[in-house]
Amino acid sequence: MQSYEQSLRQTKQFLLDHDDFLVVSHIQPDGDAVSSTLAVGWLLSCLGKKFSMLNEGPIPTRMNYLWEADKIANMSVNPPERTFSNVICVDCADFQRVGLTQRYFEPGASIVNIDHHPTNNGYGAVQLIKPDAAATAEILYDLLKTFDIAWNIDIATALYTGLLTDTGGFRYTNTTPKVMEAASDLLSHGVKGPELAETLLEEMTLPQVKVLSRALQTLEMSPNGDVAWVSVTPQDMLDCGAANEDLEGIVNYPRNIRGVEVGMLFKVIHDQAVKVSFRSAGKVNVAALAQTFGGGGHTRAAGAKVDLPLEQAIPHVVKEVSRLL
Amino acid sequence: MQSYEQSLRQTKQFLLDHDDFLVVSHIQPDGDAVSSTLAVGWLLSCLGKKFSMLNEGPIPTRMNYLWEADKIANMSVNPPERTFSNVICVDCADFQRVGLTQRYFEPGASIVNIDHHPTNNGYGAVQLIKPDAAATAEILYDLLKTFDIAWNIDIATALYTGLLTDTGGFRYTNTTPKVMEAASDLLSHGVKGPELAETLLEEMTLPQVKVLSRALQTLEMSPNGDVAWVSVTPQDMLDCGAANEDLEGIVNYPRNIRGVEVGMLFKVIHDQAVKVSFRSAGKVNVAALAQTFGGGGHTRAAGAKVDLPLEQAIPHVVKEVSRLL
Ligand SMILES: [Mn+2]
Ligand SMILES: [Mn+2]
Repeated sequence: MQSYEQSLRQTKQFLLDHDDFLVVSHIQPDGDAVSSTLAVGWLLSCLGKKFSMLNEGPIPTRMNYLWEADKIANMSVNPPERTFSNVICVDCADFQRVGLTQRYFEPGASIVNIDHHPTNNGYGAVQLIKPDAAATAEILYDLLKTFDIAWNIDIATALYTGLLTDTGGFRYTNTTPKVMEAASDLLSHGVKGPELAETLLEEMTLPQVKVLSRALQTLEMSPNGDVAWVSVTPQDMLDCGAANEDLEGIVNYPRNIRGVEVGMLFKVIHDQAVKVSFRSAGKVNVAALAQTFGGGGHTRAAGAKVDLPLEQAIPHVVKEVSRLL
Repeated sequence: MQSYEQSLRQTKQFLLDHDDFLVVSHIQPDGDAVSSTLAVGWLLSCLGKKFSMLNEGPIPTRMNYLWEADKIANMSVNPPERTFSNVICVDCADFQRVGLTQRYFEPGASIVNIDHHPTNNGYGAVQLIKPDAAATAEILYDLLKTFDIAWNIDIATALYTGLLTDTGGFRYTNTTPKVMEAASDLLSHGVKGPELAETLLEEMTLPQVKVLSRALQTLEMSPNGDVAWVSVTPQDMLDCGAANEDLEGIVNYPRNIRGVEVGMLFKVIHDQAVKVSFRSAGKVNVAALAQTFGGGGHTRAAGAKVDLPLEQAIPHVVKEVSRLL
C-alpha cells in the first residue's frame, strides 16, 4: 500500500506523461464534484494538455460563477463526439457513480480515481484516495501544490467551493486544522468566501420548506420561555410530500429561540405513539432526559418514543423537562 | 501613533508590571465579549496575577461550556466587594459600553482598552485597537502569542468562540486569511468547532420565528418552480410583535428552494404600496430588475417599492421576473 505522498507523485506523473483526458465526476454533482472537475481542468490547462470535462447531467446554476463551469458538458445536451483513453474520476466513491458518462470511456481506458469517500472501493489504474480529507477539493489542493504553477482566484475559488460545501460551511466534524489552513491560503488569493457561503450553503427542497412551515405553525412555549416545541403529524408529511430526512433541522428552530434551554419536535407516528427529538442549549442533559422515556442520545441532542397520543404526550414530556429547569 | 506591534508590547508590559486587575466587557455580552473576558482572565491566571471578571448582567447560558464562564460575576447577583485601580475593557467601542460595572473602577483607574470596533473612540491609558480585526478575540490571539505560555483547549475554545460568533461562522466579509489561519491553529488545540457552531450561531428571537412562520404559510411558486415568494402584512407584524429587522433573512427561504432562480418577499406597507425584496440564485440580475420598478441594489440582492395593493403587486412583479427567465 503506497503512502498519500506516493499517490500524489504517481498521479502527477500520470498527468505529465499523457495528453487528452476526460474529466468526470458523479451524477447530480454537488459543490465538491463540480469544483474538483474544474480544478483538474484548470491544472490540465496550465500544463497545456488537451482535455474535456463532462457530467451526466447539468451543473447546478448556482455554481455558474465558477471558472469555466459552462465548459463542463452536459451529456444529454452536448455529448463528446468520441471516446477517451485517459479518464480522471473525481469525488466518485465507486465507478458506477460516473453514470452514463462511461459511454465515452474507451474499453480498457486508464482511470485515475481521486476521491475522499471512506467507502471508495479502489477502482482505477491510479488511485489518489484520502479518506480523512474533508473534500476531494482538499486532495486536489495538495496535488496542485506539487506543481510549480502560480495560483489565481479561479482555482482558489473552485477549491474553496469544494471545501465550503463538503464541510457545511466549516461546521461539520470534518473541519480539521488542515481545512482551515487551506481555506486561509485560498482566501489570500482573493476568494469571496462570504458570497460563496450565501450562494451555496442554504439550499432547501420544497417539501423541507413546506413541512418547516407546518411545524412552525404549531410552536408553543412554556410560560417562562425556557422550553419550546413544535409538532408534525402524518397528515403534514403527506400534504408536504415530506420524507423523514426533510424533518432534519426543524427541532433547532424551537431550540434556537433566545432564552430556550430545551427545544423539542414531536413527530406523531400513529394514534398512540409519538417520537420526541430533544435539543439542549447546554443547561439540561437531554440524553439523561431521553433515558427516562426509554430513549437515548447525546447530552445536547437526544430522542425517545412516547406511547401516548400527541395531546397527552406533549404535557407529559413538557412537565418532565420543566422539572429539570 | 504607535504601530499594532508597539501596542501589543505596551499592553504586555502593563500586564507584567501590575497585579490585581478587573476585566470587563460590554453590556449584553455577545460571544466575542465573553470569550475576550475569559481569554484575558486565562492569561492573567497563567501569569499568576490577581484578577476579577465582571459584567453588568448575566452571561448567556449557551456559553456556559467556556472555561470559567461561571467566574464572570454578574453585577446584580454577586458584585465585587471593592474597587479596582487596573481595569481591562475588552470589545467595548466606548467607555460607556461597560455599563454600571464602572462603579467598581477606582477614580483615576488605569484603563486598558482592547477592541476591534472601527468606531472605538480611543479611551484608556493603554490602547490595543485593531479596527480590521474580525473580533477582539483575534487581537487577544496575537497578544497571547507574545507570551511564552503553553496553550490548551480552554483558551483555544474561548478564542475560537469569539472568531466564530463575530464572523457569523466564517461567513461575514471580515473572514480574512488571518482569521482562518488562527482558527486552524485553535482547532489543532482540540477545539470542538462543529459543536460550537451549532450551539452559538443559530439563535433567533421569538418574533423572528413567529413572523417567519407567517411568511412561509404564504409561500407560492411559479408553475415551473423558478420563482418563489412569500408575503407579510402589517397585521402579521403586529400579531408577531415583529420589527423590520425581524424580517431579515426571510427572503432567503423562497430563494433557497432547489430550482428557484429568484426569491421574493412582499412586505405590505399600506393598502396601495408593497415593498419587494429580490434575491437571485445567479441567473437573473435583480438590480436591473428592481430598477424597472424604480428600485435598486446588487445583482443578487435588490429591492423596490410597488404602488399597488398586494393582490395586484404579486402577479405584476412575478410576470416581470418570469419574462427574464
Ligand atoms: Mn466530496
Ligand atoms: Mn467583537
